[in-house]
Amino acid sequence: MKEIKAFAFDAYGTLFDVYSVTALCEQLFPGKGIALARLWRTKQLQYTLLRSLMGRYRDFGKVTEEGLLHAAKSLDLDIAPGKLTQLTEAYLRLEIFPDVKPGLIALKKKGVRLAILSNGSPGMLKAAAEHSGIVDLFDRIISAGEAGVYKPSPRVYDLGRAAMNVKNDELGFVSSNSWDINGAASAGLATFWVQRSSSEPPEELGFTADRTVKTVEDLAQIT
Amino acid sequence: MKEIKAFAFDAYGTLFDVYSVTALCEQLFPGKGIALARLWRTKQLQYTLLRSLMGRYRDFGKVTEEGLLHAAKSLDLDIAPGKLTQLTEAYLRLEIFPDVKPGLIALKKKGVRLAILSNGSPGMLKAAAEHSGIVDLFDRIISAGEAGVYKPSPRVYDLGRAAMNVKNDELGFVSSNSWDINGAASAGLATFWVQRSSSEPPEELGFTADRTVKTVEDLAQIT
Repeated sequence: MKEIKAFAFDAYGTLFDVYSVTALCEQLFPGKGIALARLWRTKQLQYTLLRSLMGRYRDFGKVTEEGLLHAAKSLDLDIAPGKLTQLTEAYLRLEIFPDVKPGLIALKKKGVRLAILSNGSPGMLKAAAEHSGIVDLFDRIISAGEAGVYKPSPRVYDLGRAAMNVKNDELGFVSSNSWDINGAASAGLATFWVQRSSSEPPEELGFTADRTVKTVEDLAQIT
Repeated sequence: MKEIKAFAFDAYGTLFDVYSVTALCEQLFPGKGIALARLWRTKQLQYTLLRSLMGRYRDFGKVTEEGLLHAAKSLDLDIAPGKLTQLTEAYLRLEIFPDVKPGLIALKKKGVRLAILSNGSPGMLKAAAEHSGIVDLFDRIISAGEAGVYKPSPRVYDLGRAAMNVKNDELGFVSSNSWDINGAASAGLATFWVQRSSSEPPEELGFTADRTVKTVEDLAQIT
């Protein structure tokens, strides 16, 4: 592996815990919170893939809303516009994983540049990063929207190179999503899989992370 | 809607019941059959999307195998090569939905040309169609492999036009998968959603089927 000149972090599921919306889901739909939160996330991801392949890119905020709408209908839940707004707005205030802030600070102290490289829209990413007090640690927030397609299209990972002024293999891409690691590796980036749960097997998509760590703090230790 | 000059059918989930492998899953992994069959199908579909977007097309038989491998690992099941082969070979002998054969025969009697337009490889599709005694009803078996990408890329739906010598809006695309209907509609085909379960909401991807029917027999009645 070459020397890593900058790190680009996936946001949802890596920095921010997408399941921190579960409590609000449960409050609005008692007994169905876990099912709704899970299906919402599944649909949100699936819709990014389907729309990208159809050539019908739409803003991540809208895709998140469409995923929620379908998840609620599938579970036969009556989701009034008020509840829909309440839940999609919760995406602007997702909780951060506890290892993230200390890990980012440790990396920053080493002088390495940091970015977010995410499917999220710039506004959503900025709001979540501000909410959790990490926005100032990043040199750049890079959104898939700039490419008009979602990950794992190589066009999205390629945005990191231009934004951070490095070669693809000098950019360390960090994600907890194994499919995202496969996509980044396929595009030629150096990859760091944050595997928080040891029971989660890697995806069978032909690539392996250059390094696997348990937390972002561990990542700061090994680099 | 224009006059439909030919129909192209999705295969897996539309003609063939992908969950007919559940009994074999249960036999090989008692108590885990339903979970394995479901996760296998989910992963198979997800991998077609991810690989397409990564630009890493691989034969559907291999993607089906990779999906099974990941599903088994996720459920902590020890899947020996023998069991893997047994299960992937079951995909060549999937059961047909009971409305399919009478529906196809009724359409054929009206003089309309029929095709399969599927993510499956030619060999897999031919084997399944032969096994269920419907292979002679089709004028063409069209595989996404010819485009080197999976549905819902418009390049796959466009294969139907050339193969059947019709315009896109003269080709009726039939699928039980709502995401597939959205993809075909986005590519300009006329769309017929076979919604076998009335509790299944359509996907929120911006398109609506031109017609929705309960069965392939109903489709023959309305056309």
